[in-house]
Amino acid sequence: MKAILVICDGMADRPIKELNWKTPLEAARKPSLNQIAKTGICGIMDPIAPGIPPGSDTATLAMLGYDVLKVYSGRGALEAIGSGINVLPSDVAFRCNFATVNEGLIVLDRRAGRIANEDAAKLAESLQKIRLEKSSIEFVFKNTIQHRAALVIHGRPKLSTAISDSDPEKVGVKVLEIKPLDESPEARLTAKILNELMDKFRKVLENHPVNKERSKRKLLPANIILCRSAGTVPSIKPLSEVYGVNAACIAATSLIRGVCKVAGMKLIDVKGATGTPQTDFMAKAKATIQTLKTNDFVVLHVKATDVASHDGGVKQKIELIEKIDRMLGYMLNNIDLSSTCLAVTADHTTSSITQNHEGDPVPLAITGPYVRRDDVEEFDERSCAKGGLSRIRSRDLLPILMNLLGKTRKFGA
Amino acid sequence: MKAILVICDGMADRPIKELNWKTPLEAARKPSLNQIAKTGICGIMDPIAPGIPPGSDTATLAMLGYDVLKVYSGRGALEAIGSGINVLPSDVAFRCNFATVNEGLIVLDRRAGRIANEDAAKLAESLQKIRLEKSSIEFVFKNTIQHRAALVIHGRPKLSTAISDSDPEKVGVKVLEIKPLDESPEARLTAKILNELMDKFRKVLENHPVNKERSKRKLLPANIILCRSAGTVPSIKPLSEVYGVNAACIAATSLIRGVCKVAGMKLIDVKGATGTPQTDFMAKAKATIQTLKTNDFVVLHVKATDVASHDGGVKQKIELIEKIDRMLGYMLNNIDLSSTCLAVTADHTTSSITQNHEGDPVPLAITGPYVRRDDVEEFDERSCAKGGLSRIRSRDLLPILMNLLGKTRKFGA
Repeated sequence: MKAILVICDGMADRPIKELNWKTPLEAARKPSLNQIAKTGICGIMDPIAPGIPPGSDTATLAMLGYDVLKVYSGRGALEAIGSGINVLPSDVAFRCNFATVNEGLIVLDRRAGRIANEDAAKLAESLQKIRLEKSSIEFVFKNTIQHRAALVIHGRPKLSTAISDSDPEKVGVKVLEIKPLDESPEARLTAKILNELMDKFRKVLENHPVNKERSKRKLLPANIILCRSAGTVPSIKPLSEVYGVNAACIAATSLIRGVCKVAGMKLIDVKGATGTPQTDFMAKAKATIQTLKTNDFVVLHVKATDVASHDGGVKQKIELIEKIDRMLGYMLNNIDLSSTCLAVTADHTTSSITQNHEGDPVPLAITGPYVRRDDVEEFDERSCAKGGLSRIRSRDLLPILMNLLGKTRKFGA
Repeated sequence: MKAILVICDGMADRPIKELNWKTPLEAARKPSLNQIAKTGICGIMDPIAPGIPPGSDTATLAMLGYDVLKVYSGRGALEAIGSGINVLPSDVAFRCNFATVNEGLIVLDRRAGRIANEDAAKLAESLQKIRLEKSSIEFVFKNTIQHRAALVIHGRPKLSTAISDSDPEKVGVKVLEIKPLDESPEARLTAKILNELMDKFRKVLENHPVNKERSKRKLLPANIILCRSAGTVPSIKPLSEVYGVNAACIAATSLIRGVCKVAGMKLIDVKGATGTPQTDFMAKAKATIQTLKTNDFVVLHVKATDVASHDGGVKQKIELIEKIDRMLGYMLNNIDLSSTCLAVTADHTTSSITQNHEGDPVPLAITGPYVRRDDVEEFDERSCAKGGLSRIRSRDLLPILMNLLGKTRKFGA
């Protein structure tokens, strides 16, 4: 018995007036999602606890069975690991954005016009050439998707995550100075290094040919790097050790790749998988089926629905759910359901109205030969609430799947 | 978005034979409660954990989002704070009853014939004049509603809550001597002071003109003070700090006022609100609507249903539920439901048969513009069990409400 877990980022939503108080999932045409619900067992799931909005990092770690309230150590390192940087336990890592500021350092766009990967890569290459005053400290800066990037600080003496962000997380306000958040010499040193680096980044970006070229093309220049979410690598046991399974992950976004990597999963690259609404859904489906041949457990992550929700794109969100549905239709036709459990869920609710992660529970359906099939017929937030799984927490999901695979350890004798 | 939480004390019940195995909620005519269920999301809620009967103190603290298993430090201090006494972290506080004993100190009535507030106030005034042998220790004694009172011991050296009660909590048995519950000098001192105080109280009460007058009127004399539930102020963060909300409470009973006050909520006084079945329900409803204008979150607490249950008054309980329903009808007609979440629940189950708090879950309904409305049509213990909230714990309720208000903090990034 093997298992596939399909995570649709931010797919769950709240009732929306313009959809006659349906959610996007309820409004979408989704025969394959419904088939999974109909032939499976359904429920709702609190990512962390009822009412608590999670990040995609904590939500995904929780779905892999970890107690995030104990093990979570910041998003930065997860993002960096996912982008391919080798992060050591003593390193401190950050999420970064290429952004646009005016001369007074007021943020005009936190995404530098959602800069293309090619431009970001050229800028990142230049930034990597900078040297810090303190020669015992090194850094790695890497662009990931569009405006997103990761930064890792490495070296001696010891560094700290107890520093504030430079990213104000909104436009129209000034970039923040990075400050130590405690009295330790480590925090003071780390803040000092980061401020030096942010200054040097800014100087290189300001006069960079890529930005001059962008201005000519009437595109926003990526003239500053904003950083946030200082973190270290969480100390967790890999899934192979916890459950004795070979596990792999198909995800384009660095953060999810990072989470899966720290859980000891293999990262599978898929041509055309972009982590955007333009991703190649079918390529991901095919890669999942292929990957399952040599693994016990495969996570397939789709970012697109979250992107649409954060942009308030209700219509786009529905279209993306329908694309996911077609992807799942292909999978249902091409996996052996007599020896495979297929689970589908969202990592969290992203409201298309508030455009934020919310603390509402997410729907979950698991189909497979030995599940206790219930009478839920549709996959959405309200139908699944009537299902046989009742209301669980995300950290219960993996034990439930591994139990179906016969991979959970008996507690007691 | 704002929120109102209506807590009906002890409203939940068990099926009763004389109601053809319906609960009082199921037997009552309650169109407004049903409307809230019908237009909202419903569920059942365990005050502490399945099967565990809570006090009104722990149940209410839990509904305000606190982990009572960690923070609860006895009822006494909550009752005292709610009665308007300023309780310091080092003080030890007690719940007290005006009671009636015979010459052999056998308890005849634990409530001194539910003594009227006026009589209790005159007696309390005389008791407050007593002086203790140890001049470094002072006390505050205050009557609250009917036979209920609060006592706070304050001073040096350090005091302890590790002492037994003088209240045997039943009639026909002798008043108990207060004993230290551990070997500490603090517990021995506190027990000694309490016994001295109880003796002095008794002497003052025995010959008090109010009691002589009561005997003439064939009323039971309040000739002893029984004390129990030694406690200190729980160390908790106010709601303003946890969620960034302005919160207020409309409750007549000292205990609930105390709980809300330690949670940093404003206490609103309402003329005619008595904490008894004779309370002015409409005055409370109007005050709630008025208070919501300047607050994000208002708790409206009704004690009457619990009083009826403890007296085994099934018919009275049904009538009180119907009065609560009319109060809610007024509220539904006078609040802006496009910008208000209205939640209604009970703090715990009080069985009209056992006349005790029981560990059964309570029904809950939340109506508001963005809730995932389910298909529950009636507000009662069994209908709500089929709702979209499934089964939660009381400590999840406030995060769920605050999530609807956009006030919960994201965990993760």
